[in-house]
Amino acid sequence: MVDLRSDTVTRPTRAMRSVMAEAEVGDDVFGDDPTVNDLEAYVAGLFGHEAALFAPSGSMANQIALQLHVPPGGELLAGADAHVVTYEVGAAAAIGGISTRTWPSVGADLDVDQIAAMIRPAGYPSVPTRAIAVEQTHNLGGGTVVPLATLQALRDVAQKSGVALHCDGARIWHAHIADGVPLAAYGACFDTLSVCLSKGLGAPVGSLIVGSRDHIARARVLRKRMGGGMRQVGILAAAGRHALDNHITRLAEDHTRARKLAEALAPLGVVDPSRIRTNLVPLDLSKSSLDAPTLAAQAAKQGVLIAPMLPHIARVVTHLDVDDEGIDQAIVVLGGLLAGSF
Amino acid sequence: MVDLRSDTVTRPTRAMRSVMAEAEVGDDVFGDDPTVNDLEAYVAGLFGHEAALFAPSGSMANQIALQLHVPPGGELLAGADAHVVTYEVGAAAAIGGISTRTWPSVGADLDVDQIAAMIRPAGYPSVPTRAIAVEQTHNLGGGTVVPLATLQALRDVAQKSGVALHCDGARIWHAHIADGVPLAAYGACFDTLSVCLSKGLGAPVGSLIVGSRDHIARARVLRKRMGGGMRQVGILAAAGRHALDNHITRLAEDHTRARKLAEALAPLGVVDPSRIRTNLVPLDLSKSSLDAPTLAAQAAKQGVLIAPMLPHIARVVTHLDVDDEGIDQAIVVLGGLLAGSF
Amino acid sequence: MVDLRSDTVTRPTRAMRSVMAEAEVGDDVFGDDPTVNDLEAYVAGLFGHEAALFAPSGSMANQIALQLHVPPGGELLAGADAHVVTYEVGAAAAIGGISTRTWPSVGADLDVDQIAAMIRPAGYPSVPTRAIAVEQTHNLGGGTVVPLATLQALRDVAQKSGVALHCDGARIWHAHIADGVPLAAYGACFDTLSVCLSKGLGAPVGSLIVGSRDHIARARVLRKRMGGGMRQVGILAAAGRHALDNHITRLAEDHTRARKLAEALAPLGVVDPSRIRTNLVPLDLSKSSLDAPTLAAQAAKQGVLIAPMLPHIARVVTHLDVDDEGIDQAIVVLGGLLAGSF
Amino acid sequence: MVDLRSDTVTRPTRAMRSVMAEAEVGDDVFGDDPTVNDLEAYVAGLFGHEAALFAPSGSMANQIALQLHVPPGGELLAGADAHVVTYEVGAAAAIGGISTRTWPSVGADLDVDQIAAMIRPAGYPSVPTRAIAVEQTHNLGGGTVVPLATLQALRDVAQKSGVALHCDGARIWHAHIADGVPLAAYGACFDTLSVCLSKGLGAPVGSLIVGSRDHIARARVLRKRMGGGMRQVGILAAAGRHALDNHITRLAEDHTRARKLAEALAPLGVVDPSRIRTNLVPLDLSKSSLDAPTLAAQAAKQGVLIAPMLPHIARVVTHLDVDDEGIDQAIVVLGGLLAGSF
Repeated sequence: MVDLRSDTVTRPTRAMRSVMAEAEVGDDVFGDDPTVNDLEAYVAGLFGHEAALFAPSGSMANQIALQLHVPPGGELLAGADAHVVTYEVGAAAAIGGISTRTWPSVGADLDVDQIAAMIRPAGYPSVPTRAIAVEQTHNLGGGTVVPLATLQALRDVAQKSGVALHCDGARIWHAHIADGVPLAAYGACFDTLSVCLSKGLGAPVGSLIVGSRDHIARARVLRKRMGGGMRQVGILAAAGRHALDNHITRLAEDHTRARKLAEALAPLGVVDPSRIRTNLVPLDLSKSSLDAPTLAAQAAKQGVLIAPMLPHIARVVTHLDVDDEGIDQAIVVLGGLLAGSF
Repeated sequence: MVDLRSDTVTRPTRAMRSVMAEAEVGDDVFGDDPTVNDLEAYVAGLFGHEAALFAPSGSMANQIALQLHVPPGGELLAGADAHVVTYEVGAAAAIGGISTRTWPSVGADLDVDQIAAMIRPAGYPSVPTRAIAVEQTHNLGGGTVVPLATLQALRDVAQKSGVALHCDGARIWHAHIADGVPLAAYGACFDTLSVCLSKGLGAPVGSLIVGSRDHIARARVLRKRMGGGMRQVGILAAAGRHALDNHITRLAEDHTRARKLAEALAPLGVVDPSRIRTNLVPLDLSKSSLDAPTLAAQAAKQGVLIAPMLPHIARVVTHLDVDDEGIDQAIVVLGGLLAGSF
Repeated sequence: MVDLRSDTVTRPTRAMRSVMAEAEVGDDVFGDDPTVNDLEAYVAGLFGHEAALFAPSGSMANQIALQLHVPPGGELLAGADAHVVTYEVGAAAAIGGISTRTWPSVGADLDVDQIAAMIRPAGYPSVPTRAIAVEQTHNLGGGTVVPLATLQALRDVAQKSGVALHCDGARIWHAHIADGVPLAAYGACFDTLSVCLSKGLGAPVGSLIVGSRDHIARARVLRKRMGGGMRQVGILAAAGRHALDNHITRLAEDHTRARKLAEALAPLGVVDPSRIRTNLVPLDLSKSSLDAPTLAAQAAKQGVLIAPMLPHIARVVTHLDVDDEGIDQAIVVLGGLLAGSF
Repeated sequence: MVDLRSDTVTRPTRAMRSVMAEAEVGDDVFGDDPTVNDLEAYVAGLFGHEAALFAPSGSMANQIALQLHVPPGGELLAGADAHVVTYEVGAAAAIGGISTRTWPSVGADLDVDQIAAMIRPAGYPSVPTRAIAVEQTHNLGGGTVVPLATLQALRDVAQKSGVALHCDGARIWHAHIADGVPLAAYGACFDTLSVCLSKGLGAPVGSLIVGSRDHIARARVLRKRMGGGMRQVGILAAAGRHALDNHITRLAEDHTRARKLAEALAPLGVVDPSRIRTNLVPLDLSKSSLDAPTLAAQAAKQGVLIAPMLPHIARVVTHLDVDDEGIDQAIVVLGGLLAGSF
């Protein structure tokens, strides 16, 4: 099977398993796990922030960050296709009581003026805007990368308005590789970031919230309420550190393979390869007779797994466990199925 | 003082006070108030629905309706400038745990295809869309009216998708008068509506939720949780019934006065009179040197009250307690202040 | 019909209707209703507090007060049979996210040491106690009165612990009459109180939250979120002021009638008349073959309405609209039904 | 350091690390992790239930189970000192909107009649009771064990009332060893259980929710909303399975050591050794001049760590990483400090 459903499917390498087996651990609820503490300090440093906190998932990391910035009844601005809006089971509202007003998403193509115009100031009878969330890279936008200059412009808008800026940076490593922007340059744009160890980086479990010392102290309490207080987390943190040390640079290979697949399928009209900058390849099936679940089911029979994201959008993702051979097989299978579907 | 801040400022007329003083009442928490029961049945009938429920405010009526349709973690689609999104203190999320995805509002100019494309089906990993809310007339849209055909098209989309359709009909009476559409024709488009007795109609307090018998039975419990269970409500219901019997047709006068003011101020570039169809006149101060709070403060000194809605938007509203003389005074005062501000 | 289900069933008197019909009003959401403003100032003064806020129901007044004191995830201590725990549709948790730990209720017989021992300090890994709520008089406790000295002792405990103390004073007027304690003496014991105009006092609608200026400013926002922002509230406030001026002293009559009924039914073993200090008479049917709904249904056929509160507890309530003749009829009907039921 | 703060501090053994390093894994959000799937099926089987679900913490497992049984606004009955009430950061109310009414806790000494009398039936105006939670063993009760017959009686009460029964079984393994009751016999008493792998059993991370197939399907969605959807969870599940296979029987040693410490400190009046049945030893410092934080701080300086739970309650816990020598040291240190404190 060539599993292209998500980069979350990667399995820990032999080397990673070895560092996990040797990791020094303690009870992280008591703050006693040295490997977690080291990882948190290291990741905070990567982004030029004061502190960080390990969380069992990217969703929890995002939701804790949103709760830090927006009290119940306050407002978050985000893209209509943002992961925090669409794929986190409604947690922002259901758990945090957070109102969301959304801009019409076109992935990473942010219109800073449009977002600025949406901010509702406090002191009027409207719900006050308390935070803005952006996604780097943008998942439903097809792994697109927000340019650093755009993020900097957005930071200026947010700061002037007294509104917090959060980055859902699950795949910020891919942006860093694709655009050659230092992680700390991204870090300087945001009040908080969530970053993920278990997607492109290949660790089995874990994300971190990055922010100020005060943010992280409050995040620790919120994490306990969410049920994210775990014990000998060093096992997982060791995998994360290994991933950070060994699996960032190699993301360039995933980007190359994604582009290769996009170029191969481009003649079928399902993808514009010039849009493919990282490891996500959304296939637009609007004009195909196959919907996404059907294409996924038929491809699976031929050994290629892809993800139906929306009825007419399937997603192909390259990652640590997919090599050139796998991509070639995917091109053959998907190309064959799609070719007969128009 | 000419008070044009809102049609909520109207005071009960002498005739209305008289019917209130004579109203037969009972304990409405026990369902024993005959005047409320009659009003609820009457309003349900106006819209061709089975049942209705009195609520102390339009916000509570809307929020109860949204809670009927959307469980915590489910999604509501609405315009970014909808009253339920912007002016109800974040209640949908804070109380109902309801996620909101918004379309870029242009008031009553709904793009049915755009809304249809936003609906997320159940069965995908995304948050399922459970309800759509539209506003008739549209407050921040400047009292604009959604054409019946648009509402019917939206109803078809909603029904096909298994999504509930709610109308924030605080000023649906104005749409009825402006477009000559029967209230029951509007009623046929929606699963639930909220309608308001204390805005254009001039009653002191009260809104109703209109829907099916099952909806209203559940709404009664939610109303108690929200703190909306009141006792001898017949006093207020009598005022509401008097307003329905006497104050709907006369809304045409308010529309005429609003248009007159818009036409008088049009040369200053703050309003397009062809957009003014009902009793709301938003003034766009983007190009003025006055912001909305400053204009409001200066006009107040000259005896004219208007409402700053957003930093650059002020709102003028005609209603039962504003006559031709009042509008003429407003034209003079606002015209004078604005003329010097460009 | 003699309606003894609750003192909420009272209908406004002719004199009260007359002041309502003449009341000066304005838009209370804008703070413009002079009659409401006067009532709020007057009630605040009665209890020696800075400010007060009108609310459409006692439940909303209580819930807003609890939200003032307890953030989501914080803890309220209350009696297990408190109205805020049992009869407000779970609002404290469902709307406010407030945890409740309860002491075993014995109505107004508070054990201050027991309550003090329940307080969880901040700084431990447990949920911090943020507020304590007591009820005066105690509804399910049978209208029993908490002695002033007990409240003062509880206030000292609360202040020492940094915990807020709220009084659900829906029937605090009855305690004032029964024990001869000045309202301001009660007021001095609490951070906030809710008091009700529509129960014993006979106004059709309305309660107030009483507290500091800061509390009430925040309460105004919470009231809007709950849907309690109403418009020409002066109509209702005028009734409330009339009730305060005319219907407090006469509560002594209600107390006398309640005691008379209790003494008449005492030989049947359903009530201990020495416990009946105000206007509530709970009938304990544990040893009767009739459960509360059945007794209520049979009494209703004979023209006497009572309330089943729990399967084995029915409640009889005296009030403004019940005279000596009504009580005599209730004694005959209830006595007859109960006599045959053991 | 002898670390007796909690059995959560245990570090994975060499053997456990080895099985973790070799574990077969997959993406558990997609249901693809064979080691997790095996563990879930195995644990469900141990308790005679249909299904189980891995969660990152016992708090999340409990909170998901409570949300399964109690909708927002519904009521949970639990002991006032229950972990779900006291130590989960208010999550039941803050996240689930769940009201809690509590009985006065005396640990595992449940009074079934008292609990039965607290159940509020649906159909009355009170908040309906939807679930009861009990804890086995009882943490703040000092590791006390609820007799099987009591649980069976409670199950009968719950079933007759249509109320769900949940077991916070974080340390149910200790009850199983202490009383010799089969796990399936416990399982038969409850609608759902949470059980923990990372406390007495010594796995680094993880708890499971056990219940019906339908419960677990719904739990999977709630887990995602809470942020508990993790990826290659097999690493952790392998540790959990190893713990279940190797670390249950040995809990008897922990119980013996706990009893030994209790007997040694009994003459000081801080603990009744006849109450110590499992691995928790609460020390009641009410009569000591040392409060719990001070005792903990002083003991730490002498190499013994204990946990202050409440101002006057410190807790000592035996576990996999504490041997006879450690207990002897703890006896000397705590005995010495306490001896001088009366």
